[in-house]
Amino acid sequence: MTNLGASQSPSSSEQSSEALRASLGSRAAAVEAMLDRLIPRVEGPEARVIDAMRYATLGGGKRLRGYLVAEVAALFDGAAGEEGAYRAAASVEMLHAYSLVHDDLPAMDDDDLRRGQPSTHRKFDEATAILAGDALQTRAFEVLAETETHPDASVRIQIVLELARASGAAGMVGGQMIDMEGEGRALSLTEVGHLHALKTGCLIRYSAEAGAILGGANPEQRHRIASYGRDIGAAFQIADDVLDATATEEELGKTAGKDLAAEKSTYVALLGIDGARREAEKLADRACHVLDIFGEKADRLRDLARYVVERRS
Amino acid sequence: MTNLGASQSPSSSEQSSEALRASLGSRAAAVEAMLDRLIPRVEGPEARVIDAMRYATLGGGKRLRGYLVAEVAALFDGAAGEEGAYRAAASVEMLHAYSLVHDDLPAMDDDDLRRGQPSTHRKFDEATAILAGDALQTRAFEVLAETETHPDASVRIQIVLELARASGAAGMVGGQMIDMEGEGRALSLTEVGHLHALKTGCLIRYSAEAGAILGGANPEQRHRIASYGRDIGAAFQIADDVLDATATEEELGKTAGKDLAAEKSTYVALLGIDGARREAEKLADRACHVLDIFGEKADRLRDLARYVVERRS
Repeated sequence: MTNLGASQSPSSSEQSSEALRASLGSRAAAVEAMLDRLIPRVEGPEARVIDAMRYATLGGGKRLRGYLVAEVAALFDGAAGEEGAYRAAASVEMLHAYSLVHDDLPAMDDDDLRRGQPSTHRKFDEATAILAGDALQTRAFEVLAETETHPDASVRIQIVLELARASGAAGMVGGQMIDMEGEGRALSLTEVGHLHALKTGCLIRYSAEAGAILGGANPEQRHRIASYGRDIGAAFQIADDVLDATATEEELGKTAGKDLAAEKSTYVALLGIDGARREAEKLADRACHVLDIFGEKADRLRDLARYVVERRS
Repeated sequence: MTNLGASQSPSSSEQSSEALRASLGSRAAAVEAMLDRLIPRVEGPEARVIDAMRYATLGGGKRLRGYLVAEVAALFDGAAGEEGAYRAAASVEMLHAYSLVHDDLPAMDDDDLRRGQPSTHRKFDEATAILAGDALQTRAFEVLAETETHPDASVRIQIVLELARASGAAGMVGGQMIDMEGEGRALSLTEVGHLHALKTGCLIRYSAEAGAILGGANPEQRHRIASYGRDIGAAFQIADDVLDATATEEELGKTAGKDLAAEKSTYVALLGIDGARREAEKLADRACHVLDIFGEKADRLRDLARYVVERRS
């Protein structure tokens, strides 16, 4: 008997999700290799903090932020080249990892699991986790500032500045503060949107924009990439809310149902699961549309916008 | 009766300590005003983290690091000008403040007092203190990267890179790790020197060197300023050990005798109080000598080297 399924040509949606999977996989491997190079093991008494930095960054994650830097940079023929793009990709993954390490601390979200493994303070200890997070932030800026990232100092200083803006008190950290202040209190849809935009949106938008800056995008191109980044960032967080409400702990590799337990105001709480899904899809549509000017070269970025709202983990 | 003391001319040592006091006071006030400008109050739910950042940075401290940036920059006629120098001075004070906020946390040194006031996590809470420290580090890099600090991007990127090197896992944070690993274990004189060089020395040397970079120093000048910074950094830490062993809590504005209680290996433990004092004085002498090429313009920096080893708080 012939297997009819195997002889059918795959649908265009299956093809693009296959192409995205391959692209995500190969870029994630390159980001991983770069992180391994940029945080080398050392000997001596300071080794412990380096080990914790490596533990917190290496070995996993979807590398969404790093992928965005590298995939957007590849739209252009910038002077950074692959080396520079992957350095910036590794840098934003360090920044992201620092925020997770500190977020998981007992005084913050008090989470024992991260990607199915003990969180950094459980694997090491609290003091080491605080220091490793601190040093990961520092290293993220250091890597951007080094000549190898881009030959032009004015390009490097621009991405340093954008990373700082995206991750400080007016960005990611501000969002974390709002998130903690909001626990147990009902937030409006506008407030939840503001919270998401700061807490996760800024760094995802930065990732896309850093790729555009490194690639030498013109103002129109950079504006569109930033808009794409903003929309998939928002879609990503809404999808995260939906996953928290619907997926199992095994699928997530972290504690599920936490938002509900913490009485956090989420898109799901405000719009329901279906309403939240529709909102995420609307954002993904808009994100795809704004990439029109880049033609087929931006197909993987469009696939990514779809993937972000359809993922199961 | 005439007051004979009043009619005597003050000694040269009294004159220079008076001149240094005035210089420290006026530069500390300018750093304070810059910090107030660079971390403005905001409204809304993220206000709490900003309030904690302001609490941790404003209102006190000797501003040794900020003073070094501004006083060294004033040796030169660099393009940064006073505005740029004080921005960089405020930046390094933010970086220093972040390290103190995290150092004081229960999981680290567990200190309730800082400059005679409740430490940041006691005044706010642990989560806010972690976030405020994180955001202070970010803001330190952001301020350096902004155009207002220096018109030339290649100068700005250079100080960003130097700050990252001085404060990351191969600098300050590495030193903190070694310090924690070393508690209750006997360290050799070499190990203690390495620990000090990383934990406090790197950031003090950076402060002097940042002033030189902003001022447009030539390589010989920059090398000498770095050497000065390294020596007064080491002298400062040795003097700190001596103070911890000899001063009262009231004089220090923080818990005294902590090193002894934590069985930390210090210069005092290894060399005795007099031996440690002599070592600090030797370093201060060398720091003064290396400034010869700058003539009288460097008098306050020489006074500072003396002050660092003679201070009582």
